[in-house]
Amino acid sequence: MACNEVFQYSIVSALMDGVATHGTPIARVLAQGDHGLGTFRNMVGEMIVVDGEVYQMKADGSVVHISNPEETVTPFATVTRFRPTMHTRISLTGKEDLEALLTRLFPAAKNHFLAVRMDGVFRRIHFRTAGGQISPREGMVDVCARQTVHSFEGVKGTIFGFRCPQYVMGINVAGDHMHFITDDRQRGGHILAFETEGEVDVAAAQMSNFHLELPTEDDEFNQATLVLQAQGIKAVEG
Amino acid sequence: MACNEVFQYSIVSALMDGVATHGTPIARVLAQGDHGLGTFRNMVGEMIVVDGEVYQMKADGSVVHISNPEETVTPFATVTRFRPTMHTRISLTGKEDLEALLTRLFPAAKNHFLAVRMDGVFRRIHFRTAGGQISPREGMVDVCARQTVHSFEGVKGTIFGFRCPQYVMGINVAGDHMHFITDDRQRGGHILAFETEGEVDVAAAQMSNFHLELPTEDDEFNQATLVLQAQGIKAVEG
Repeated sequence: MACNEVFQYSIVSALMDGVATHGTPIARVLAQGDHGLGTFRNMVGEMIVVDGEVYQMKADGSVVHISNPEETVTPFATVTRFRPTMHTRISLTGKEDLEALLTRLFPAAKNHFLAVRMDGVFRRIHFRTAGGQISPREGMVDVCARQTVHSFEGVKGTIFGFRCPQYVMGINVAGDHMHFITDDRQRGGHILAFETEGEVDVAAAQMSNFHLELPTEDDEFNQATLVLQAQGIKAVEG
Repeated sequence: MACNEVFQYSIVSALMDGVATHGTPIARVLAQGDHGLGTFRNMVGEMIVVDGEVYQMKADGSVVHISNPEETVTPFATVTRFRPTMHTRISLTGKEDLEALLTRLFPAAKNHFLAVRMDGVFRRIHFRTAGGQISPREGMVDVCARQTVHSFEGVKGTIFGFRCPQYVMGINVAGDHMHFITDDRQRGGHILAFETEGEVDVAAAQMSNFHLELPTEDDEFNQATLVLQAQGIKAVEG
């Protein structure tokens, strides 16, 4: 796959419907991209892929570096071979500020995808981690109802995420969706709120190619209803 | 692109919103697949791709073989490198009968894509052709309100089309979407109804990879709202 194209395995609606028992080896996802987001079997923790390395950010606050991507399975992941076309340094007061920045920097991207990475110090950052299903087919709304919220101040780290156009809601998450990991790769999760401490490095790229691979020979996926639950997705991933 | 994967240029919601002035050379689409559907600039006629050949089926009933795919542009097309994994011969009483057949032959395809081709004699077949926009940005519902309906009896020809899962509605057309062209490649269009005359050859394949390429440097596409108009799409493409 070329640089700055989106590769995705399975769809968010499948997670909403609790399809998370099986998946694809993370090594196959890494072959398509070096930066991204996702989750793990049974939605145990949040996934972030940075510089080709995969981390599992668990509900107890710990982070596991996935050193065996051939043997570790993901039921849902989105990655890109990230080669930013835009770099800037800026202070940001929060998610809305970042949203406005991206819209300003990419005026013709409303119906395209964006990838964005930020490196720097965060005055405050709140992120959550999902603890996983307590029974097979438990849906993402119920899984996230038990999420753990973590708050840090003055922490150095990396944010990576995607902006997806409205029309992919259900397949992915429409709008901005970002994960965070600390510089020492010891803490991280799905971002709820943040504020930078001074300027941070922002790098981004617009993307116009989207590749979707669906689970095969997976009875859970085959039998799932996969109706659009836009409100639910917005509630747990927005 | 590998065999039996879906390649799509732009999205159906863009056509609904009248985005059809620009596009991509058909030669670029043909590089990704040898069977498919689509339309032409300003939605002038229906496109069918069979055995690597592209035909423009116009509202006046004529069919133009596209002999210069490098110079001809499509604002929307879906193709696959079709290598059927299932072959059968069967009599069919209509679209519902074909729907039931495909569901029976591919029991684990509810959340996947199908490609299907039928060759044979059709006792009766009704198809429509869209005549094109009368002004820029005219939406597909208005374009199709002026569609021409053609009816034939005892005609030999080829049907090709796709079944898309429900969750791609708006990106493509959920459900079955088929075009027809006569054996002599002189008549054809978007199928409204059909009945076979005795048995026809049915060939099909299940597909689990979907590649979407979005228009770039296209102000019409960039500015379009692209909200899901599921009922409208069903009305004109279902």
